[in-house]
This record gives sequence, C-alpha cells and structure tokens, in this order.
Amino acid sequence: MTASPSTAIDLAALHRRDFPLLEQQINGQPLIYLDHAATSQKPRQVLEALQSYYSRDNANVHRAAHSLSARATDAFEAARGMVARFVNAADPNEIIFSRNATEAINLVARSWGEANLRPGDEIVLTVMEHHSNLVPWQLLAQRSGVVLRHAGLGADASLDIEALCGLLNEKTRLVALVHLSNTLGCLNPVEQVVEAARAVDARVLVDGCQALAHLPVDVQRIGCDFYVGSAHKLGGPTGIGFLWGREALLEAMPPFLGGGEMIEEVFLDHSSWARLPHKFEAGTPAIAEAIAFGAALDYISAIGLATIHRWEQQLTQRLFDHLRGIEGLTIHGPAPEQQADRGALASFSVAGLHAHDISALLDSHGVCIRSGDHCTQPLHRLLGLDATARASLSYTTTPAEIDRFAELLIDTVGFLRANS
Amino acid sequence: MTASPSTAIDLAALHRRDFPLLEQQINGQPLIYLDHAATSQKPRQVLEALQSYYSRDNANVHRAAHSLSARATDAFEAARGMVARFVNAADPNEIIFSRNATEAINLVARSWGEANLRPGDEIVLTVMEHHSNLVPWQLLAQRSGVVLRHAGLGADASLDIEALCGLLNEKTRLVALVHLSNTLGCLNPVEQVVEAARAVDARVLVDGCQALAHLPVDVQRIGCDFYVGSAHKLGGPTGIGFLWGREALLEAMPPFLGGGEMIEEVFLDHSSWARLPHKFEAGTPAIAEAIAFGAALDYISAIGLATIHRWEQQLTQRLFDHLRGIEGLTIHGPAPEQQADRGALASFSVAGLHAHDISALLDSHGVCIRSGDHCTQPLHRLLGLDATARASLSYTTTPAEIDRFAELLIDTVGFLRANS
Repeated sequence: MTASPSTAIDLAALHRRDFPLLEQQINGQPLIYLDHAATSQKPRQVLEALQSYYSRDNANVHRAAHSLSARATDAFEAARGMVARFVNAADPNEIIFSRNATEAINLVARSWGEANLRPGDEIVLTVMEHHSNLVPWQLLAQRSGVVLRHAGLGADASLDIEALCGLLNEKTRLVALVHLSNTLGCLNPVEQVVEAARAVDARVLVDGCQALAHLPVDVQRIGCDFYVGSAHKLGGPTGIGFLWGREALLEAMPPFLGGGEMIEEVFLDHSSWARLPHKFEAGTPAIAEAIAFGAALDYISAIGLATIHRWEQQLTQRLFDHLRGIEGLTIHGPAPEQQADRGALASFSVAGLHAHDISALLDSHGVCIRSGDHCTQPLHRLLGLDATARASLSYTTTPAEIDRFAELLIDTVGFLRANS
Repeated sequence: MTASPSTAIDLAALHRRDFPLLEQQINGQPLIYLDHAATSQKPRQVLEALQSYYSRDNANVHRAAHSLSARATDAFEAARGMVARFVNAADPNEIIFSRNATEAINLVARSWGEANLRPGDEIVLTVMEHHSNLVPWQLLAQRSGVVLRHAGLGADASLDIEALCGLLNEKTRLVALVHLSNTLGCLNPVEQVVEAARAVDARVLVDGCQALAHLPVDVQRIGCDFYVGSAHKLGGPTGIGFLWGREALLEAMPPFLGGGEMIEEVFLDHSSWARLPHKFEAGTPAIAEAIAFGAALDYISAIGLATIHRWEQQLTQRLFDHLRGIEGLTIHGPAPEQQADRGALASFSVAGLHAHDISALLDSHGVCIRSGDHCTQPLHRLLGLDATARASLSYTTTPAEIDRFAELLIDTVGFLRANS
C-alpha cells in the first residue's frame, strides 16, 4: 500500500470545508463521492455567486439602459473574460457560451460543418469518443455525405496515435477528439494531432470536458481550432458550457440558432448578424450560470491546475495500487506508470460480476461510483463489455476515502462472488 | 386618478417579502423595478431550491446507480411534471427542456421544419413577433425555400386576425405567433388562429414567453401544436426554457442536437434515438435550473394565475390612467378598455424625446424601465420608431410604485423638454 501522499499539498485538507454536499450521510454511512467525472461538486463560493446575482443584480443583459441590467451585463461579460483567461484564448470574443459541451460540438457541426464540408470529405474521430463527439458528426454525415473515420487503441489501451495519423489524407477536413478520455483516463497527445492535421490542412476540435478540471489547458499552445468544455464538470453550475474557436473561423461561420441577441438588424424577411460572440448566442443567455461559472474558475485558478494535477496524480496512484490488489479486477486504460499525466479516474470490471451490482452495493455503504457505458458505447463494445464501473476523483477526495472505497470494494466483490 | 386597487387581492402586500432583490436602493433611491417583461425577479423559494439541490443532491441524471444520482433524477423529472401540469400538457413526455424559448423555437424550425417543409410551402407569422420567432424561420426559409408571410395590425394596434386568416391557404404549413406581445401588450386570439389553421391543415406554434407569467395557459384548450416558454420570465432561473409539443408530432420529428442522453444505442457510424422527451435533450441538461423552475411554478401556482391576472389588470389600468395624463405621450397597443385581458405593460413614446434619455434619467431616480426595440425591430419600423420606452409590471408591483413612477416620469419629461 502506498503511504499517504506527502510530496504534493493536501488539497482536500485545505478545501474540503467549502463543499457542503460532501458532508452528508448516504444510507447511514459517510458519503464517499467518486463520480466527479460525471459531475463535480460545487464550492460554496459558486452557490454564493448564484445567490448574490439573483438577490442583487438579476436583470436581462445587453438590452436596457438601467442600472440592474448594466450590472448584470458587466458580470456576465466579466465571466466570459474569465473563461477566456482560463483556457488562454486570444480574446474573450472567442468564447461562445452554450448549454453544455454537447451543444458546443453541435454548434460546430451545424455551422462550420454544413458551411464547409462536401460529400466525400472526411472527419477523423477516435473509438473512445463520448457520444457527444460521435452523434453530432453522424447527423452531419447523414445530411452532408461526409465520411467518418475512427482511430483505434494502442497496446496500452490509450489512443493509437500512429493509426490516427495514418487516417489523415487530403480529404480530411476535421479531426475531433477527446483531450482526456472519460472512460480510459488517457490523456491524448493533442499537440501531436494538431501538427499532423495541419500537414493536411485539417481543422482540429478538442473535447476538453474531462481535461479542464484536472490539468492546465492552453488552447493557443495546443494549437487546435475549437475547444469545448462544460461548467458543471469544473465546479460550476449546470446549464452552461462553452465553445472556444479561433476568431477568424468563428467570424466566417454562419449563425447556429436565430433570435434575439445574435442579430444586428431584423427585417420581416431577412436579418444581419451581431458581432462575435453574440452571433452564436441566441435568446436570453444563461446569465446567472455564466457568473457562477466564473466564480468556479476563480476558485480552482486560485488553487492552480498544476497543483491540482500533482495532488490528483498521487491520489490516482493510490487508487490504482488498491485496485491492482483485487483478484479478477481489470482496469481499462493506461496505468500511471505508463502515462504519468493520465486522468484521476479508473474504469474497471471484475470477472463474473456486473458493474451495476458493484455500484449498487457500494452505494448501500455510502460510496457513489458510476457504472454503465459512460456514454462511450462504441468503446465498451470494443472492450467486449456492456458496462464498466468507474471511480473518478477530485482534488477534494481524501486518501482516506480512497482507502475506505477499496476496503468496501473488496467486501463487495467478496459478497457478490459468494452470492452469485 | 384611479383609487388603489381594492376589488382584487393585494398580492404585492402578501408576496413582496419573498423577493430580496426588490428591497434595495438604486442611485440612492428605492428601486422600482418595472422591467419584468425582460426578466422576472425570483422569490427566495427559487434561490432555496438551487441551494438545496447543489448542497445536498447534486449529481448527473439518468446515468448512475447511486443515491445522489437517483435523487437528482427524481427531482429533475418531477420538475418536468410540474411544467406539464402548469400548461396542462397531456403527458410530461411532451415537455422538452431547452436553454430558453428561443432555442425551443429553433428546435421546431430545425427538426420539424426541415423534415416537413418543402420549397413553396408557407409559414404565417405576424409583424409583432419577437426576433426569436422571426429569425429561426428566416434561417429555415434560406435553407428550404419556404415562403414567409406576415399578418399586420388592426386599428387598435393589436393583431389583425382577419388579415391573418386571409393569409391562410392550402400552402400554409405553419402559423407561428406570439400569445401576448412583449411590445404592444395585446393578447392574441390563439384559439381562433388554431381553428383557422386547422381548416387548411396547418400546424400552430405559440410563443408564450409573456403570457405564461400573467394568465392561465392550457395548451389543450388552445389546441395548438407547439407552445414555448422561458423560466426566467416566470420567476425561475436563467438557462432553461421549454418546448411543449403534441406527442405524436414530437415522436415523428428527427433529433435536433446529438450527444449523450438523447440516444438509445450508439455505434461508430450510426445511432438510434431515446424515447421522448430525452430524444431532444442532448448532453447533461440544466438540472438545477429545471428543479428551480419547478419551485418557481409551485410558487406562482399557489397564488394562482387567475388571481395574478385580476390583480395585474387593476395595476395595468392604473398605469394607463397615469400615462394618459401626460401630454405628448403615446401608448402603443390596445388600451385596457379595448382589450380587458391585455398584458401588464405599456410601451410608449413621448413626442420629441428619445426613449433612452427617458429610461436613463428615470434610472438615476431608482426606476428601471426598458428602452429600445424590445427585440421587435420590424414592429418598431412599422410604428415609425427606432425605440420605445416600456414599463412592465408583475404581481409584486405595488400601486405606490406605479404612482411614484408616474410622478418621476412627469418630472423627467419636463426636465428633458426644458433641456432639449
């Protein structure tokens, strides 16, 4: 067994008090929440931002000459600036607020895709993509005749980057891939993908949902064209995500949804479009959500993603050490020894047992892990499984929680084996 | 001057304490918030629902076997049921959560419109539509060759229903119109529109953003096919709205956005779709927002929309009586004497003065009204104006606030005239 993490700052000890939800009992036992990859818990600062907005500044934005509207507009646009700084966008106008990362990908597929792709053009994806980065391209392929290609896995159950590069050719117009897999936990070499895509003049979209909460992301250093994320996985509220896109690309794209906010002039039979970012934000936006998202980014930026990443690496090593001690348990994805930067999660299966039985029994002991296909059905099919169990961590996870989870998992596996 | 409302229950006296935002000073003066048509203020019960969700139940929905996810899913789906009851939908599955009403209209335009409309088919709109009910159809017309027709105004500055009916013919496939105009305040005879549309086998979409907060809405009694609304105008949070559609229509429609939640099975090259309502809800939904929206509907349902409507009718009469006493002021839209059920707002202009100057000066005295085109540029063009001022009320508005607003407006007009 690994000793308690000692070479990184114990972030759980410092920050746990800000997460009221974690201090509760589930089924009579202290909650151990290990489903952070599905959604993060929110520090009280985020709840306070919501309360403060709704009880002091609430008004519609960009529309009125009164003080409340000016305050709401300032706070909303400040939040956009915070997202821009968080991913190192060149300009806040490159940040488009969406409902979630899924909508952001659909925006690119509908707007950029329909305007730029022709029958026979190719989009390269990977077999580990979340449904959100598969289905929008399938719908586009049905409408436009675009061909989808999929890169597979290498020997260590991470992306086969050579295979991906081998799929690129003069017909390739886009590579769309996940930065950090929500199932395998592998961190994909997106800079290398960008370099290869540039050689055939293809654009690159990166799904950053899992990466953003766990390591520093710099879209300019990555060099991609589009990057998407979701606030609710970053300590922020539900109901808001974002698309980052290069300004020139966004400028050239036609609108996605039509309505208020996204227009310049409206006539009965035609309209002209607002400047970025408003061109892609039709209707009253998720104002309170944007502001609370900004508060969440403030909170984790103050800790620092590099600090978070170091601490989570130790937690992940501890998790792997425990899981590898359980007979018949297989972890899907590269080990920390194979990929030091891998994500703070482990998807696993236990021979002869169903993932749902494992998670249900753990839940009766207060442990929340996820079981299912994690919205990666094609990957699960490739692994020959219909479901896996997944424990996913955060910087608020304590080493003691990981130890207790492992104890309970051993008991659970023993109980299920004895009763199957 | 009208006496204080006496024949309806004084709802402001009963409920004002639940709205913390309203008890503040703006520019050293007590806030008088008369911009409810742009967005409503939130009772503390809605803020408490957000707090309670995030500090106790927060988890992703429909995805996991653990207790938090089960609680979040139950609360989220219960909220859908509350929206269904609020508009008297036949089934909760007919309620699709969207970011806002604008997205809901775009969903219908993209999904139903692209699947069902052919070049030369006609959509009938009105000249008073919000941009959200104009631009999506313009974008559809560009893609599909559909022809847009627009019904005009009658003598009392409300919808010319005969003109609208005169536009209907065998090519008409859809009539899309606002229930209660955000600018004119007129309540459109949607039941009559439905009857006329049925005679030519056309579908009817009603934009209920302004109606829903002010009078009882029953989609089955109206008889329309689609009805859309936004939570933030109903005392609920930003970031969520809804589409109601007839189940058979929604069943027959192709998906709008692709991703998690909306699928049944996903393969690399194709997918099958989830049942209603999930087919139209791609990605992690606005979970907290749905739950808080439910709390908002609970709050206003407990008061009762019929009660709210009666009280607001008295407030509206008081507002009109005041405004009609100001020389050179024109109110745009039918008077309460012409249309008893008209909305609780008044858009107006004052000869020789700009609406923005009026609203800016009022703001310096603590009064928040809106000035601008209210996202109805074509209507303003028809009225020969680039902007109007608009005071819009809620059941929390007090008669004293209306009186004070009128006093300050008289002072403002006098000051601006003297200084122009």
